[in-house]
Amino acid sequence: MANKLKEFIAEVKPKVDAFIAEILKGEPKKLYDAAYHLPSVGGKRLRPALVIMVARTLGATFEEALAPAASVELLHNFTLVHDDIMDKDEKRRGVPTVHVLYGEPMAILAGDVLYAKAYEALLKAPQRPDIVVEMTRMLTWAAVTVAEGQALDMMFEDRWDVSEEEYIEMVKKKTGALFGASAALGALSASKPELKDLLKEFGILLGIAFQIKDDILSLVGDEKVTGKKKYNDLKEGKKTLLVIKALERLSEEEKKKLMSILGNQNATDEELAETANLIIKSGALDYALKKADEIGKRALEILNSLPTKNPEYLELLKELVDFAVKREY
Amino acid sequence: MANKLKEFIAEVKPKVDAFIAEILKGEPKKLYDAAYHLPSVGGKRLRPALVIMVARTLGATFEEALAPAASVELLHNFTLVHDDIMDKDEKRRGVPTVHVLYGEPMAILAGDVLYAKAYEALLKAPQRPDIVVEMTRMLTWAAVTVAEGQALDMMFEDRWDVSEEEYIEMVKKKTGALFGASAALGALSASKPELKDLLKEFGILLGIAFQIKDDILSLVGDEKVTGKKKYNDLKEGKKTLLVIKALERLSEEEKKKLMSILGNQNATDEELAETANLIIKSGALDYALKKADEIGKRALEILNSLPTKNPEYLELLKELVDFAVKREY
Repeated sequence: MANKLKEFIAEVKPKVDAFIAEILKGEPKKLYDAAYHLPSVGGKRLRPALVIMVARTLGATFEEALAPAASVELLHNFTLVHDDIMDKDEKRRGVPTVHVLYGEPMAILAGDVLYAKAYEALLKAPQRPDIVVEMTRMLTWAAVTVAEGQALDMMFEDRWDVSEEEYIEMVKKKTGALFGASAALGALSASKPELKDLLKEFGILLGIAFQIKDDILSLVGDEKVTGKKKYNDLKEGKKTLLVIKALERLSEEEKKKLMSILGNQNATDEELAETANLIIKSGALDYALKKADEIGKRALEILNSLPTKNPEYLELLKELVDFAVKREY
Repeated sequence: MANKLKEFIAEVKPKVDAFIAEILKGEPKKLYDAAYHLPSVGGKRLRPALVIMVARTLGATFEEALAPAASVELLHNFTLVHDDIMDKDEKRRGVPTVHVLYGEPMAILAGDVLYAKAYEALLKAPQRPDIVVEMTRMLTWAAVTVAEGQALDMMFEDRWDVSEEEYIEMVKKKTGALFGASAALGALSASKPELKDLLKEFGILLGIAFQIKDDILSLVGDEKVTGKKKYNDLKEGKKTLLVIKALERLSEEEKKKLMSILGNQNATDEELAETANLIIKSGALDYALKKADEIGKRALEILNSLPTKNPEYLELLKELVDFAVKREY
């Protein structure tokens, strides 16, 4: 991550985290402990940073963007808690997941509380009521759309004929929507509803690039750096862009091999590594990297068209696009 | 149910249901089918009726209350879908639950979508933005509070020393909060924010009475009339007012017997019926009936203090209190 972006995030993270810690206090303690677990153990805070950077670029103060920033992080954590239950993932951010620590019933409720608290946070925004209503509408759109994306992601696990187009549509919903809402909330934080659709489009592109890179890191990343279990996507049979392209390009025999491992929970580490090599060899990795890069460029074009009040924050947004595409974690 | 109340609900139900059916359209179809399952198979629609009755009592039109009415029903169905997963209940409203039909992962998402759609519905309310913000705040308060109540309910299953006070607090949250929010949303639908706290208080009392009666029906109701599996609460070890009072009043030996069956998933129908008789014999049933009646009376007092514009709707509200306490389903 570029130094300036790193510094910016290091500066805003404690403030966002303090807001989240404060709003996640309540009784019964066990419920709030379960809800606070995931946000308390880390996370990059990219979505709140995005809200604040867009808001500052368009002339808002930090304070005007804090509540929406905390809101999107809460919504993000809600989706992760439920996602981990659905995928039966046992680790996230290097530590056991909420359902492993508190049991599934409490984890479902913890997710529900994080979701409700995302609205509670948003409703603390200091903007005019008509802007707050627009913000609430944007958060709701994101919540609906992320759920649709998660459902598609899950349904694709049972299919072998997922197209690149379908994958992009799924990722646009699963990851793009919340990045899109974050950027749009930044515009609304600056009381610029006329810019919310353009920023939403920017955020969606950023999110898609981010997710493609996320899929890549699950295949070739360093577990110690990413904090996520490698090859998890392969084990779960996720139809990532990498898999879709590999299925197109491999020989019949190699394709059969790939299909025998994909979604096989009992696959050994050796088999998974072999499968990863097959995918890389097919050229799918290069294709996905190029795709993420292209989408990142489209996001940059939007940034260059913005009526910027604070150019230093525009630079940070460009660095964020760069990070989404090139990061190692 | 009194005839006038029945007629009123029969009149508003199709309109609320049409609103819900319309808002639960989307892709992927499987997700929306899962989300629409529970609202489509029945339900009394008491909460939306409550919103509309309060709104009409205070001078609003039906149209002004429709969006909030649909919203609370969506929120209610969201909590039921997740609750059924947490409790591993296989039937609700006489048909298989969402997770039985669609699997747990899709059911979690279906609940999440119902939740988000509750906000989407509310944001269609035609009131001024400042009133819509207040409505959103009220729905959020209810969502947080219901989750807290569900967590308490679950945590009480592992305890034998739950007091009547703790039970009332739990039920106030689990059931009272959404009835409270419904009545408050009725006041806000009539653009009367100054009445929202009083109506919230009324709704909470109504909800508590309703839940005590619900617990009673789980013990002595007719399965064919209630549509719910009898003795489910006993099997799950729920600390209802009935159980709490019985534990206070039974002899040591009877108490031991009760404790050996409570929370025992393998208890036979005969053992469960015997346990139910123990509870009835202890006087706990009479106590709970009296308690529900008392709380209903306090709710009626609030109704009598309202600045009523349409007395016929006030009468319906009184009938609703009566129904909550005396119903057989």
